[in-house]
Amino acid sequence: MPIEELRGILGPGRVLTSEADRLSYAYDASFGVYVPDCVVQPKSTEEVQAVVRTAARERIPLYPRGSGSCLSGGPLPVYGGIVVDLSKMDGKLEIYPDDLVAVVSPGVRTLDLQKAAERHGLFYPPDPSSSRVSTIGGNIAENSGGPRGLKYGVTRDYVLGLEVVTADGRVFRTGGHTIKNVTGYDLTRLIVGSEGTLGIVTEAVLRLLPKPEARRTALAIFDDLVVAGKAISKILTSGILPGALEIIDQACLRAVEAFRPSGLPVDAEAVLLVEVDGHPAAVDDEIRQAAEICRQLGARSVEVAADEAARDRLWFARRQISPAIARIKPTKISEDATVPRSRIPDMFAKLREIRNKYGVELVVFGHAGDGNLHPNILCDLRDREEMKRVEEAVAEIFRAALEMGGTLSGEHGIGTMKAPFLTWQLGEVGVEMTKRIKRAWDPDNIMNPGKIFPEPGKDRLVFTS
Amino acid sequence: MPIEELRGILGPGRVLTSEADRLSYAYDASFGVYVPDCVVQPKSTEEVQAVVRTAARERIPLYPRGSGSCLSGGPLPVYGGIVVDLSKMDGKLEIYPDDLVAVVSPGVRTLDLQKAAERHGLFYPPDPSSSRVSTIGGNIAENSGGPRGLKYGVTRDYVLGLEVVTADGRVFRTGGHTIKNVTGYDLTRLIVGSEGTLGIVTEAVLRLLPKPEARRTALAIFDDLVVAGKAISKILTSGILPGALEIIDQACLRAVEAFRPSGLPVDAEAVLLVEVDGHPAAVDDEIRQAAEICRQLGARSVEVAADEAARDRLWFARRQISPAIARIKPTKISEDATVPRSRIPDMFAKLREIRNKYGVELVVFGHAGDGNLHPNILCDLRDREEMKRVEEAVAEIFRAALEMGGTLSGEHGIGTMKAPFLTWQLGEVGVEMTKRIKRAWDPDNIMNPGKIFPEPGKDRLVFTS
Repeated sequence: MPIEELRGILGPGRVLTSEADRLSYAYDASFGVYVPDCVVQPKSTEEVQAVVRTAARERIPLYPRGSGSCLSGGPLPVYGGIVVDLSKMDGKLEIYPDDLVAVVSPGVRTLDLQKAAERHGLFYPPDPSSSRVSTIGGNIAENSGGPRGLKYGVTRDYVLGLEVVTADGRVFRTGGHTIKNVTGYDLTRLIVGSEGTLGIVTEAVLRLLPKPEARRTALAIFDDLVVAGKAISKILTSGILPGALEIIDQACLRAVEAFRPSGLPVDAEAVLLVEVDGHPAAVDDEIRQAAEICRQLGARSVEVAADEAARDRLWFARRQISPAIARIKPTKISEDATVPRSRIPDMFAKLREIRNKYGVELVVFGHAGDGNLHPNILCDLRDREEMKRVEEAVAEIFRAALEMGGTLSGEHGIGTMKAPFLTWQLGEVGVEMTKRIKRAWDPDNIMNPGKIFPEPGKDRLVFTS
Repeated sequence: MPIEELRGILGPGRVLTSEADRLSYAYDASFGVYVPDCVVQPKSTEEVQAVVRTAARERIPLYPRGSGSCLSGGPLPVYGGIVVDLSKMDGKLEIYPDDLVAVVSPGVRTLDLQKAAERHGLFYPPDPSSSRVSTIGGNIAENSGGPRGLKYGVTRDYVLGLEVVTADGRVFRTGGHTIKNVTGYDLTRLIVGSEGTLGIVTEAVLRLLPKPEARRTALAIFDDLVVAGKAISKILTSGILPGALEIIDQACLRAVEAFRPSGLPVDAEAVLLVEVDGHPAAVDDEIRQAAEICRQLGARSVEVAADEAARDRLWFARRQISPAIARIKPTKISEDATVPRSRIPDMFAKLREIRNKYGVELVVFGHAGDGNLHPNILCDLRDREEMKRVEEAVAEIFRAALEMGGTLSGEHGIGTMKAPFLTWQLGEVGVEMTKRIKRAWDPDNIMNPGKIFPEPGKDRLVFTS
């Protein structure tokens, strides 16, 4: 490990080698502990280039990392080597209001970008639930989503251009400041979601939108999950495109009510949260229509928030789900298998079947509008017998999503967690075409090795090792 | 040329070898005449695979083609070989209203998809001006745009998944039926806009939207182009996101009035056409606001269409531009250099300078909302002296767009027409990273050779050869 050379590039303060420092970079928000040999904290493109050139010469693996809130193992240093902590590279956050564009360093926090845009009356829609800590660079690596995917898309839809350091330490720019751009291959979107396996993003040009003037929110309680599914379809085919359309199942409701009661009925099968945004007159009419659809289909009750305080109350239960279910058992496995929207009721039925078949504690909430459910399994990592059942249950969730025409991952990424299953979705030819790109851009496999691609001998999910 | 083998695959009727047939595939809507050795018309994925396998074995170049309305030379068979006419492969046009998804064969016409979506109350936004003849496969190859780019994006933003035949005749699927999908690299968008150089698209999964309920349109006349530019910025930063925001310059106005008068003043410097779509109450208010902004900034006059008939009248002049300017001189060179929106007034000033410097007949209209201008040069291909000046003027347009942070091509593609300039935008490293992908996927360079990449000895634009 060329520690002295790295210290020469970054100064001694930004090359971390103590055991305590290295241990604190051994985790993300998924599973597995992998201690890197060292951690570097570059602050400029030139420093990233110099670090990459050093590592490339010595063929040392590099693991780009934002704030480590990844749910799929993206930043884990699984083969040792150097973690490249980009969270300190946060110097640039520029808003160009006339162009509806922002230019940012990779270490800028998602929330800080959102706030900066709002100060100009603008709006950066991608909103992963980790937005208070997550970085834009991490969002780009994993193509992060959130509840606004249905109407506004995901991170990919807001990245107009990138500055990228290649696996041999050169630098290039993709895309630009315009929405329309068909000059050459779309390298921008090839890099978005590639989880740091193709290069290191050192700057991003992001698209902004005018901020919607108004929003209205409704919460509908259903005795029957299938009816809730019908309400989702009916709302969307009536011409309304909600800014958010969330679903919460009975198990989540019960967990929330046991944690911080918000007065929701624990005997209901599902709750829908609908939010429309846009012109004030439009949102008033649309929320009325959406509420009416829920009532006509037989919702037990529908409440429309009269003001922002009432809106916050309606969102309260949704926001409590993660902390509430985390109390059920010590280990929380959050999946993001996504299905075509019309298959949501089928997927709920299948998830219930999986819960019973494997005897696992499985709860479901998620972004119903875009088919992106979050089945969460609550378990105990120390209980090997239980974890075996969990592994099988998770594999069956993936199989079910794919059988319904969905995807392994809607917004968390493949990382280490879903790599064993990649071929299930892409097929042999798809995996090979993907590998060809990886090999063409990173022939020595130093950029975040061990992610996305199935590794020999790792053909199944293993939580316990 | 293994004609008999191709006839064995497709039957004799769909392998065209007569001179008349081959000549009719020697053109697109740009420049250059290149006669292919033969033309094949597959109707299924299996037929495409068999044709590709035959060509791959013999290393015969393949040129996928839709309806040939390409403005950048994308489908031209520049090195001879086989044109793969996919316009007959139009068997599938399925709408899944609950999933807001369409599944289509590549030969389906854009307009037919738009109409099919509308029958379900849905909306396919990409709307290239060739939509009456263009195919979805061609739109995907060139990542086509149109006037709705500002609010709705371009073809890329609506392609969720693809079926692709590789350069060695295998087949794979990318993406799927969901908006959220982060499983592996984004091969879908890598292929969109790759102009048939990476494989042949044999099926596409497209995203649809609920159809906006209402639209309102206004036309504003400006004595000063710079003021028109200010109106564009003011409208967009006021929170309005128009479905279309078009600009027409004086030269276009004069051409239209000389062709089919619509009563527009030929002494005005610019006309803006603003269209908002969405909820009825919202569009009424937004068009009133947009009109008010134009008036306050000093528009000579602003007219808001009261109904659909009045709307059609306002759009009339915009629709007549292409036929009107085509009458000025025999040759029409339509560019699509795109700049950040705030630079539109600067770009207009620069285009005026270029017109005077090279003494060329240059008119400008385009999609002002997304910075995608269409400078058109009217000339005569038989006049070599004039064409030399045109070549220099076009190169200077590209240079200006790039200096302003824009792109060589907003929506027409690179093809043969802009390939000599690719390095100007992507730089040496960007071009090399692009070539690495091309070589990894098509090592024998049989998929649409001669496009996108600068060719040795072809380092400038040549209209006359």
